[in-house]
Amino acid sequence: MFADLLYEKIEKMENPTVMGLDPRIEFVPDSIRASSGNDAEAIHIFNLHLIDALCDIVPAVKFQSAYYELLGPAGAIALQKSMAYAKSKGMVVVLDAKRNDIGSTAKAYAEAYLGDNHYTADALTVNGYLGTDGIKPFIDICKSNGKGIFILVKTSNPSSGELQDLKLKSGTTVYEKMAELVNGWGRDIIGNHNYSSIGAVVGATYPEELGMLRKMMPKAMLLVPGYGAQGGGAEDVKNGFDNNRNGAIVNSSRGLMCAWKAAKFNGKYTHDQFCEAACEEALLMKTALNAVI
Amino acid sequence: MFADLLYEKIEKMENPTVMGLDPRIEFVPDSIRASSGNDAEAIHIFNLHLIDALCDIVPAVKFQSAYYELLGPAGAIALQKSMAYAKSKGMVVVLDAKRNDIGSTAKAYAEAYLGDNHYTADALTVNGYLGTDGIKPFIDICKSNGKGIFILVKTSNPSSGELQDLKLKSGTTVYEKMAELVNGWGRDIIGNHNYSSIGAVVGATYPEELGMLRKMMPKAMLLVPGYGAQGGGAEDVKNGFDNNRNGAIVNSSRGLMCAWKAAKFNGKYTHDQFCEAACEEALLMKTALNAVI
Repeated sequence: MFADLLYEKIEKMENPTVMGLDPRIEFVPDSIRASSGNDAEAIHIFNLHLIDALCDIVPAVKFQSAYYELLGPAGAIALQKSMAYAKSKGMVVVLDAKRNDIGSTAKAYAEAYLGDNHYTADALTVNGYLGTDGIKPFIDICKSNGKGIFILVKTSNPSSGELQDLKLKSGTTVYEKMAELVNGWGRDIIGNHNYSSIGAVVGATYPEELGMLRKMMPKAMLLVPGYGAQGGGAEDVKNGFDNNRNGAIVNSSRGLMCAWKAAKFNGKYTHDQFCEAACEEALLMKTALNAVI
Repeated sequence: MFADLLYEKIEKMENPTVMGLDPRIEFVPDSIRASSGNDAEAIHIFNLHLIDALCDIVPAVKFQSAYYELLGPAGAIALQKSMAYAKSKGMVVVLDAKRNDIGSTAKAYAEAYLGDNHYTADALTVNGYLGTDGIKPFIDICKSNGKGIFILVKTSNPSSGELQDLKLKSGTTVYEKMAELVNGWGRDIIGNHNYSSIGAVVGATYPEELGMLRKMMPKAMLLVPGYGAQGGGAEDVKNGFDNNRNGAIVNSSRGLMCAWKAAKFNGKYTHDQFCEAACEEALLMKTALNAVI
């Protein structure tokens, strides 16, 4: 089951990092673009290099669906192939697509990404605005097929509070209510390490809320975006972890994909050395996270 | 701009109906399946027949992205081709994908579907749980490219109330707060008929809320799902309209695609006559809507 798969992979690699592959074509070096038939193929090759370079350091990879959809049908092929490749290299594969719909349609999304059809994700991000019957088809397939979902609770973006932080008459906020729903949805799909395959997304950019939500959802694996390019650091994410340095996985996308041009490397790497730079950055991130959790 | 395009098309055809193309392969007659290379191609041909049959009766078509994603990359091609065909036949094209993400990623989704790249939608459905900076990239492209969005306010599914109906400390519900946000987001993109290109999704299955939201969002075109298979009838949707029989568009998906087997037609049609049946049902729906609005 997904919760155990992710927990054990994090434990084995002693690294609660997920590499975000949200590539724009301008992230890909000219050398790869020149030898590729189109942008989607170039991005796929770029992904393969990063997966090869980081699969022994980082336990999981998160594909951001939007950047593949932007490339049309060729992007769907690139996504499919890159996901399958990451899986073949032993990485836990998360598709970040934030899908949501009424029950019958949610079932189609669940089958599409968690049903061993064309795409091979271990887990999918999901938006819970529609309530239980929009989430249930995903839970059903998590149970039957050993998969997982991460439900948006408190997102990392600056205006996430406009709706999510609103106070309800009952005294809690909207995101706390969502956390309560996540607890209920995940209740009967708990693995050997006492975590559920129904996890939650909580942004690194809100460290206080992250700590509170860690306590409120003791069985939810937390997917934590917002590290690096969005402003979160190791100190900001430490509240998301349990006493076993587990229970959360921190995403870095541009921080890894575009590490070669980070100011801290002071011109050490060229664009063609994006993999070497990503490796160095992944090791720095691993050290930084392990120092605080 | 989108608001005018949709308003004028509804006015011209005297029909506020949108045909939902959410096809599962079992909806497609054997005759089409036998002559198609794969499921995605069969679904595309099925769509073409329905578009040809209904483009002079129904002003708009709504593609449900999930059913195409379920078919993998071939589904992306079918979606692309079916959308382009509907556009070539003069229909207003809505993509129902309920996308949502942080700003940089929302921009990629906006470019993917509203940016004249690979897919040619006039409008996209969007989930507003992330607040303004997750919506702004869509609004920007609506302004620059004459496109539209429909933001989920009160969805048609049975458990939509779990989150959306919660009472806030301020006295309103979560969905009313979302309606207020929709008003703000749509304020400076108003067309000649006093409607905004930033519309809202409100389910036919909640007629009271529909009437209230019609008044709360006087400038939002309403996309109203839930008619037919989900249980809504003409009486249930009438509250969504203005005094000019406009301002809302009612979706029917299975009601049209699978009309041939409706009990009311009492065996009149075979599966191969799905287009004739869809036409008869579309005319009945047009009459039923015009009788009450």
